[in-house]
Amino acid sequence: MYSERYLFEFTRNVFMKMGCSEQDALKIADVFMAAELRGLPSHGMIRIKDYYQLWKANRINVQPNIRVVHETPSTAVVDGDGAVGMVAATRSMEIAIEKAGKVGTGWVSTRHSNHYGIAGFYAMMALQHDMIGMSMTNANPLVAPTFSVSPMLGTNPIAVAIPAGNQPPFVADFATTPIARGKLAVAEKKGEKVPLGFVQDKNGESSDDPAILKSGGSMLTLGGDYVHGSHKGFCLSAIVDIFSAVFSGANFGPFVPPSVAYLPVLAKKVGEGTGHFFGAMRIDAFQDASIFKASMDEWITTFRSAKPAEGHERVVIPGDPEREKEARIRAEGISVLPAIAKEMKEIAEELGIEFENRE
Amino acid sequence: MYSERYLFEFTRNVFMKMGCSEQDALKIADVFMAAELRGLPSHGMIRIKDYYQLWKANRINVQPNIRVVHETPSTAVVDGDGAVGMVAATRSMEIAIEKAGKVGTGWVSTRHSNHYGIAGFYAMMALQHDMIGMSMTNANPLVAPTFSVSPMLGTNPIAVAIPAGNQPPFVADFATTPIARGKLAVAEKKGEKVPLGFVQDKNGESSDDPAILKSGGSMLTLGGDYVHGSHKGFCLSAIVDIFSAVFSGANFGPFVPPSVAYLPVLAKKVGEGTGHFFGAMRIDAFQDASIFKASMDEWITTFRSAKPAEGHERVVIPGDPEREKEARIRAEGISVLPAIAKEMKEIAEELGIEFENRE
Repeated sequence: MYSERYLFEFTRNVFMKMGCSEQDALKIADVFMAAELRGLPSHGMIRIKDYYQLWKANRINVQPNIRVVHETPSTAVVDGDGAVGMVAATRSMEIAIEKAGKVGTGWVSTRHSNHYGIAGFYAMMALQHDMIGMSMTNANPLVAPTFSVSPMLGTNPIAVAIPAGNQPPFVADFATTPIARGKLAVAEKKGEKVPLGFVQDKNGESSDDPAILKSGGSMLTLGGDYVHGSHKGFCLSAIVDIFSAVFSGANFGPFVPPSVAYLPVLAKKVGEGTGHFFGAMRIDAFQDASIFKASMDEWITTFRSAKPAEGHERVVIPGDPEREKEARIRAEGISVLPAIAKEMKEIAEELGIEFENRE
Repeated sequence: MYSERYLFEFTRNVFMKMGCSEQDALKIADVFMAAELRGLPSHGMIRIKDYYQLWKANRINVQPNIRVVHETPSTAVVDGDGAVGMVAATRSMEIAIEKAGKVGTGWVSTRHSNHYGIAGFYAMMALQHDMIGMSMTNANPLVAPTFSVSPMLGTNPIAVAIPAGNQPPFVADFATTPIARGKLAVAEKKGEKVPLGFVQDKNGESSDDPAILKSGGSMLTLGGDYVHGSHKGFCLSAIVDIFSAVFSGANFGPFVPPSVAYLPVLAKKVGEGTGHFFGAMRIDAFQDASIFKASMDEWITTFRSAKPAEGHERVVIPGDPEREKEARIRAEGISVLPAIAKEMKEIAEELGIEFENRE
């Protein structure tokens, strides 16, 4: 087990050794820790090696000149200049929040960025400003549109954070696929099959093989099959892709650059890097803030009082599970898989910093 | 078969006889016709009787004073004053478009409205202004949150319309449930079962009975069950409800007033009427308009070229099916079911106007 402090400082040190400013390295470590604490280790320490190897391959800019290249009072396009995704994304969300402060809402589309970690982190940045936050990103193509076998879209997550008063905030953060890709890897390692509705084979037949992506298969969109509304999941994923990449001039769909160095740079580009989209809305742009918060409290308590289905204790409000995990993980410490701790140790040795292998 | 012209004029006449201004009646008829032409008759002529009976029950305000009650440069809250939903919604979307013209984007949350017809109509209003349009609405509670048996949410649709250049626009318009409620009614009338994943019984067991809502059952959110991501569908539906009702001060979730007169007015209110949410974003708030359109064309042609799954001819771009239906229905005429034509005839007689029963 590791303390948050220990892994935070290690992460900061890795990125500073790679050449990031301390300010940027602190932002990056914040996002990595948020993933670990909220129980999403697939976006935590496991990703440090990916970034380290992209940096060694000269595919990351650790001294970026992040700048607004186009704007109106309520919008901006940000060029991330090839930055670590967390740095470009944090700056972009700050700009959305600044604009919301002035004209009620702010909307930023970001190009030339990289994998930004958990979508929810940026949406939640708005909460402390009494704003609603939104965040979405495109990602490496693994997901086929309905009726197709071509992996054209990422798992393209959407996050929305809404402040409440006495209740904790509403925080939704979800991929626009039935499951995150990480669950396929876990099932594969355990030698388990997956339920139908997650993946299909190279001909478009539904499959229970979690390794099917390695033999021309693809993930399905939320809904699973057409009968159950997979075309709606396709709409959502497409909207995320367009808002993130067409709005900003990033690469869309099949052209999103790999977030790992072992995959080659794609031959074709239709824009710059990976794209994100951020939104901030002042709650008092719609209602007096105290009325808004009281109303959200009433919404949350109303839904908490829904009658549970047989075999279930309660209805889950978006954000509850991650808060409960965070409380537990803060108390117990962060567990890092032995294979990941070994990678951290190797990276530490190469960079001349410390990492204690506690597993 | 009826011509669009004939049904448009009949619809206008009905609402003028109910006391709407000609201007409002024309807007209402526009939305009804868009539903029929786009192949969504569940939101077309079949709904006129619902509105007529709400009006007879004095539950609709045909002379509303629709007004902005709160605003910032990029946002507004509109009070629909109990108007026909299409009137409040059209005015709200116009305000979003006006604000986008000034500061890049405009966002309007609307309270004290009623059923507004097809969500896509309002999103598509933005297209002619070279803007991206968004529209969503809450609706009568039929849908249970994940792990619950309480119908707390409507089928809460989301529509997003994005202009392209040479390609037709991208228009997504979908309920946040696997299917629209109308499909249950059709299956019930035909005596057919429905696939699992659409509805559950009063204990939360998945059911294939399309009439299960009449015995304490409820619809499921997009995803169908938790394993397949129904909690993501719940997040989406909840976001629509909060943006539409908490932002505006309308009734949320289980308190949305019935859109039919045969259901009583609810005892508890938490706001005013039904709520909607609208957005407009100028495409040149992000990119030069010609670059944006060329990029959307490239996005659309890229996705059109995805390899089809076996047994399918092509990938469907959101908006394609409705455009194809519209071309066919404009050529062939609008078919009205005999039972609906009979209702129209009865309404016409009561109001002293003409309706020719052609079925």
